[in-house]
Amino acid sequence: MSADIDFAKGDGLVPVIVQDDASGAVLMLAYMNRESYDRTVATGWATYWSRSRKAFWVKGETSGHRQAVRAIHVDCDGDTLLLKVDQEGGAACHEGYPSCFFRRRSDAGWDVVETRRFDPATVYKK
Amino acid sequence: MSADIDFAKGDGLVPVIVQDDASGAVLMLAYMNRESYDRTVATGWATYWSRSRKAFWVKGETSGHRQAVRAIHVDCDGDTLLLKVDQEGGAACHEGYPSCFFRRRSDAGWDVVETRRFDPATVYKK
Repeated sequence: MSADIDFAKGDGLVPVIVQDDASGAVLMLAYMNRESYDRTVATGWATYWSRSRKAFWVKGETSGHRQAVRAIHVDCDGDTLLLKVDQEGGAACHEGYPSCFFRRRSDAGWDVVETRRFDPATVYKK
Repeated sequence: MSADIDFAKGDGLVPVIVQDDASGAVLMLAYMNRESYDRTVATGWATYWSRSRKAFWVKGETSGHRQAVRAIHVDCDGDTLLLKVDQEGGAACHEGYPSCFFRRRSDAGWDVVETRRFDPATVYKK
């Protein structure tokens, strides 16, 4: 199965588009290597590879906002995945917004177009 | 405006998630450099950077399936864009499917879950 995914093109990583299965909202973009893909399939919970921490990243491990995977799609040339998920807590972004794409371009700049669901300071304690 | 987009992290390119503005379907993932972003904003037509051809790529230039941009979102850390578009011709994928993510994982393999809108052989002539 994972043999059909082209991990080589991106030096072992593929970009993963994460979409809310119910609303269709695009929540975030993350990355997977083959092992995180296999873990995702095996557990049913979205598991990425953190490029900054260079470590496996079970989404929601810290915040509790896990992503239950409902479907996995691969694109035509096999180098991008689309995950359809149920987002626990209704917020995917570490800044507390439903999606990471909470800013929309206007002629004046970037407008915040979503409402915070949680205060990051209370979720990510030092 | 484009100063808020982090092109440096990806060696001058950012991944761009393309979503159908009406249906919410995720159509494809492409890449932009700063100049293709500026051209997209100036013209209103999605203009990417082709990594394989190393050239600007006005989506639909050959097929006629252009993408009229309805909104541009940027993510929390500024290194990914989300474009909401009206997809001309109802098909984004060069293989003739509505989206590039026409294959869904099942336990048996990858199932084609979309129907072709056009025959690539008739659209992309030699």
